[in-house]
Amino acid sequence: MTHYNIDERDILFNVKEFPGLAHLENTEGFEDTSEETFDLLWDQAKKFAVERLSALFAVGDREGCTLVDGKVQTPTGFDELWAQYKELGVVGITADSEYGGANLPHLFSIPVAELECGANVAFSMLPLLTRGSARLIESFGTTELKEFYLEKMYSGDWSGTMCLTEPGAGSDVGAGLTKAVPDGDAYKITGTKIFITWGDHDLTENIIHLVLARTPDAPKGSKGLSLFVVPKKIYDGDDNFVRENAVSCSNIEHKMGIKASPTCVINFDESTGWLVGQPNQGMAQMFQMMNDARLEVGLQGSAQASAAYRSALAYAQERVQGVRKDASGVHAAKIIEHPDVRRMMLRMRALSEASRAMVYSQALYTDLSHKGKNDVEKYSALCELMTPICKSYGSDQGFRVAEMAIQTYGGYGFCQEYPVEQYMRDLKIASLYEGTNGIQALDLVFRKILSNQGAYLKYWLADVAALVGKLKGTKLEGLADLVGAGAQTVAQTAKTFGGWMMSGKADAIQYRATEFQESFGHIMAGYFLLAQAGYAQDKLAGEVSTADKVFYEQKLVTANYFIRDIMVQAQASLSHYELVEFPGGDAVFV
Amino acid sequence: MTHYNIDERDILFNVKEFPGLAHLENTEGFEDTSEETFDLLWDQAKKFAVERLSALFAVGDREGCTLVDGKVQTPTGFDELWAQYKELGVVGITADSEYGGANLPHLFSIPVAELECGANVAFSMLPLLTRGSARLIESFGTTELKEFYLEKMYSGDWSGTMCLTEPGAGSDVGAGLTKAVPDGDAYKITGTKIFITWGDHDLTENIIHLVLARTPDAPKGSKGLSLFVVPKKIYDGDDNFVRENAVSCSNIEHKMGIKASPTCVINFDESTGWLVGQPNQGMAQMFQMMNDARLEVGLQGSAQASAAYRSALAYAQERVQGVRKDASGVHAAKIIEHPDVRRMMLRMRALSEASRAMVYSQALYTDLSHKGKNDVEKYSALCELMTPICKSYGSDQGFRVAEMAIQTYGGYGFCQEYPVEQYMRDLKIASLYEGTNGIQALDLVFRKILSNQGAYLKYWLADVAALVGKLKGTKLEGLADLVGAGAQTVAQTAKTFGGWMMSGKADAIQYRATEFQESFGHIMAGYFLLAQAGYAQDKLAGEVSTADKVFYEQKLVTANYFIRDIMVQAQASLSHYELVEFPGGDAVFV
Repeated sequence: MTHYNIDERDILFNVKEFPGLAHLENTEGFEDTSEETFDLLWDQAKKFAVERLSALFAVGDREGCTLVDGKVQTPTGFDELWAQYKELGVVGITADSEYGGANLPHLFSIPVAELECGANVAFSMLPLLTRGSARLIESFGTTELKEFYLEKMYSGDWSGTMCLTEPGAGSDVGAGLTKAVPDGDAYKITGTKIFITWGDHDLTENIIHLVLARTPDAPKGSKGLSLFVVPKKIYDGDDNFVRENAVSCSNIEHKMGIKASPTCVINFDESTGWLVGQPNQGMAQMFQMMNDARLEVGLQGSAQASAAYRSALAYAQERVQGVRKDASGVHAAKIIEHPDVRRMMLRMRALSEASRAMVYSQALYTDLSHKGKNDVEKYSALCELMTPICKSYGSDQGFRVAEMAIQTYGGYGFCQEYPVEQYMRDLKIASLYEGTNGIQALDLVFRKILSNQGAYLKYWLADVAALVGKLKGTKLEGLADLVGAGAQTVAQTAKTFGGWMMSGKADAIQYRATEFQESFGHIMAGYFLLAQAGYAQDKLAGEVSTADKVFYEQKLVTANYFIRDIMVQAQASLSHYELVEFPGGDAVFV
Repeated sequence: MTHYNIDERDILFNVKEFPGLAHLENTEGFEDTSEETFDLLWDQAKKFAVERLSALFAVGDREGCTLVDGKVQTPTGFDELWAQYKELGVVGITADSEYGGANLPHLFSIPVAELECGANVAFSMLPLLTRGSARLIESFGTTELKEFYLEKMYSGDWSGTMCLTEPGAGSDVGAGLTKAVPDGDAYKITGTKIFITWGDHDLTENIIHLVLARTPDAPKGSKGLSLFVVPKKIYDGDDNFVRENAVSCSNIEHKMGIKASPTCVINFDESTGWLVGQPNQGMAQMFQMMNDARLEVGLQGSAQASAAYRSALAYAQERVQGVRKDASGVHAAKIIEHPDVRRMMLRMRALSEASRAMVYSQALYTDLSHKGKNDVEKYSALCELMTPICKSYGSDQGFRVAEMAIQTYGGYGFCQEYPVEQYMRDLKIASLYEGTNGIQALDLVFRKILSNQGAYLKYWLADVAALVGKLKGTKLEGLADLVGAGAQTVAQTAKTFGGWMMSGKADAIQYRATEFQESFGHIMAGYFLLAQAGYAQDKLAGEVSTADKVFYEQKLVTANYFIRDIMVQAQASLSHYELVEFPGGDAVFV
C-alpha cells in the first residue's frame, strides 16, 4: 500500500500532449527525446516512487534526523533507499553525458522529480542539491574540477550542497562574512553557513560543498562573493582517501516539516577549497543556476498539491456522510456528492493542474532555450519571466491545496493516520527557501519586467494574443477573451509600475509586488489551462476513446471553472492600485 | 522569558472602549460588571498566562500525550499547571454562582480565554470542555444532577467532555449508533466515541462525559439522540468512591498540532449514565450550547493569530537585513522597513484586530441577550447570525495570519526555535472541529438567513446603516460608504440565494456557501473596524495622551487598509454568482 496517489493521466498529458514533447523536435543535442525512452524512464521511476520512496514517507517524518557526536543520522532505511536510488541513474538526468550525465531534456526530468516530490519530498532534496551543485562545477569549473567531481556526483557516490546563507545573511546573501584566504593553488575557507540542506549525512562517501566566500580584497556586498568547492573529505586523483577536511556540522534545525532532510549548520575552519570560475562571480554564477532550482521548488509545491488533492479525492469518493436526494430517492451520500465538497475538489484540481501546466511548460521552454533550433531568445526570456511565478505560485497555491485537502478529510485531516497533514507541513518550506516568495516578487517586478522595459513580458503577451486569436469562433472564445483581458490587465499594471518607477515611487511598487505576483500567477495559469482546453477541444472533434473523452471534457470544465471563478477575481484585485498606492506609509507599529 | 507577546492595548480597547463594557450597564443579574473587577481578573490571568501557561507551550508540543496501559499521560508539568489554574477560579467564570460559578459577563471571560489560547491553546481546551459540559448539566439537568456535578466541575476538581462524534458520524451527528438502555433510574450506555478532547487524562479525580446516545425506541437520525451524563468514576452522595464505570480509552490520535491535548477514542461498555433533560432532545440541547463553543473556537483562531502577528512584529523590528535609503543616507535596515514586510504587518494586524473586534462584540451581544434590559431579541439574533462567521473567520483568517507570520521570519519561521510554526499547526484544528467551516457556511446560509427570511440579517444591516449615517460628514464618510455598499452586497446575495431556493437550486446555494461566508466575514469585519475607527476619531477630537494618539490614529490606518485592500475585494467576489451558478454540475472526478 502506498499513500501516494499519482495523477498519472495528467502528468502524461503534459509530457506527451500539451505542452508535449513533440516540441523537442525543434532541438538538437539531447541524447534522446523519444516517447519510448520517456516511457521506460517513467515506469522505472514510478515503480521506485510507489514501492520505495513512499514507504519511507511517514517513517522519515516521525523519526527525523539526529545529530550524534557531530554526525547526522538519517531515518531508518534511508541508506538502503539511496543505494537503490543511485541505480536509477537519474541524479545527472539532464547533465552532459561527458561527465556521467544522461543528457535528457527537462521535460523528462521534471516528471521524474514530480514522482520523487510526491512520494517523499524530504528525500528528493538530496538528489536535487547534488544535481544543482554539480551543475555549478559543470558550468564554471576547470576541466580538472569537472573530471574530479562530476562522475562521482552524478552517480550518487558523492552528494552536494549549496552553502549560501549565514546567520546575518539570509535574503541579503551579499552580507555573507565567510572568508577565503589564498593558500597555494587552493584557499582556506573559514565561516559558518546555516540552513544547509543535506549538509551532513551518512548516505554517501563524501559531501561536496559549493560555498560562497569572500577573498581578502574582494569588494563589499554581493559583488565580492566567489564560489568555492569544499569537499568534506579530501581524496587524491587515484580515489585514495587523504584526509578529513575541517568541515563540521554543529547543529541541525528542528523543523515543522521535511524532517527527514537534515538542515545543518556547517562550520568551515580553514577548510581547503578550490575556486570555481572567476573570483567575485559567485552571485552571478548562482543566478545562472537559480532558474532550475526555483523551478524545482515550484514543482515541489505542485507535486505535493497534486498528491494531497488525489488523497482527498479518494477519501471523498469513499467516505459516506449525510444523505442526498436524486430521481430515485434519498440515499446515503459519498461526501463528494455534497456541493461544498465538489467545490473543494474542483478548486484543488484546477490549482494543481494549473501549476503543473505552468511548471512543465517552463521545463519545455528551458529545453528550447538550451538546445532549440530557433526562438532561443524568446524561450530564455519566458524562462526568466516565469521562474519567480512558477516558484511562488507552485508553493503558495500548493499550500492552499494541501490545506483544502485537510479540510476535505474533516478531523481526520489533522491526524497523521492520513498523509495530508504531512504534505502541508512539508510543503510550507517551499515558500521560504530558494528565495522567499517576497524576494521572488521583487525579482519578477524589478529584474524581470521593469529592468528590460517589459521585453520578456511582451513574449508572453504575444503568446496569449496568438492563443486568443486561434480560439476565436470556437466554443472557447468567451473564455479566451477573459484570459486576453487578464493579460491586458497584467500589461497595464506593469505600465503603472513603470510610471511609479519614473516618479520615484519604488516603495509603492515593492509594496504591491507580492499581490501582483499572485494575480499574475493566476492569470498565467489561466492562459495555460486555456491552452490545454484548446488542445482538448481539438481532440474532442475527432475520434477518442471513452476514457479520453472524459479526460478532455474535464479539461474544458477545469478551464471554465478556473478562469471564471479564480482568475477573474485575481484580475479584479489588480485594478485598484491607483486608488491605494502605499498605505503602509502611515502605519506605525508599537 | 515568554514566547507569548500579548496585544494588551488592543484587548483592553475592546473590553473598555469599543465594543466596551459600558454597554453592560443595560444588563441586570451579573455578579459584577465594573472595570475594577475586570482589571483584577485580567492581571491575575495575564500573570498566569505569561509565567505558567506559556512555559509549557513548547514542552507540551514536543512531548505530547501518550497512552500507557489504557491511561493517558499528559506532558511534564501539566498536573501542576492544572492545580495552579484551579486557583484562578475561572473554570466557571460565566456560570451561575449558585453552583460555584462566578457569574461574570462573557466580555470578561473572553479576554481571559484569549490569554489561555495565546499562551497554550492545547491546555486551554481542558477548561473549555469542562465549562461547556457543565453548562449542559446546568441548563438541562435536574437539581440533583446539578448539585452533584457542578461545583466539582466549576472548581476544576472534575473535568468534562463532550462525546458527539462516532466513526461513522462526524458532520452527520445524527448517524450516531451509541445505545442507551434503561436500567432502573439510570441507563446502560454502549458505544464508541471518537475525537474526544481531553477524553482521558491524569489531571483530575474524575472525568464527566456528556454523551449523545439513542434509547431503544428512539426515532432515526438526529431527532432520536438523547443526552446522558456518564462519569468515569462513580461516587456516592457523600463523596465516597464507589466503583469505576466501564469507560475506557482505547486510542489517542497522533496529530499535527495541539499535541498536549489528548484526542481520545472513548469506549462505553454498558457504562452507567443518567439522562440530562428530556429524551430525544440531545441535538437541540447541544445546539443551545453551540454558540458559546463556536465563539470560543473563533477566539482560538483570533488569539493565536494575534500572538503570531506580535511575534513576527517583534522579529521584524529586530532583524536586520539589506539596506534602506532615507534623507540621511543609506542604512542597514530592520526588515520592518521593507515595504513587502510592512504589507504583511498591516495585513496581519488588520486581520487579527478585525477578528478580535468581531469575537468580543459577539461576547458582548451574548451578555446583552442573556441579561440585557432591552433589545434582547436583537442581540440573540445577532449572536445566531454571527456564530458561524466568528467561528470560520477567526479560524480561517487566523490561519492566514499564522502563515504570514512564518513568512515574515523567512527560513526561521519553519524552525521550532520560534513559536510561529506551532501556532500554525495548533491553529489548523479550529477550522475542523466544532463543525467544519463548511458546515458553518451551511448553518449561516440556510439556518441563520434563509429559514427566517433574513430577519437576523436585518438587525445587522440596520446597525451598519446607523453607523454609516453617524459617520456622514466626517473624515470617515468615504470608508463608511464602502462598508455600506459591502453590506448591501451581502443583502443582495442573500436575496439571490432566496431566489435560487424558490426555484429549487439548493445545490447552487450549498456550492457558494463557503465563499459567501468568507466574503460576509470580511465585510462584517470591515463594519467592526469602521466602528472602532469612528470611536477613535471621536477620541482624537479631544485631549489624548501621546501613546493613545498613536493607538487611535492606527485604528484609522488599519480600518482604511482593511476596507480598501481586503474588504472591497471580498465584496467583488460576491458579484459574479449570477454568472456561474453551479459549475460543479459538470465535473467528473476519476
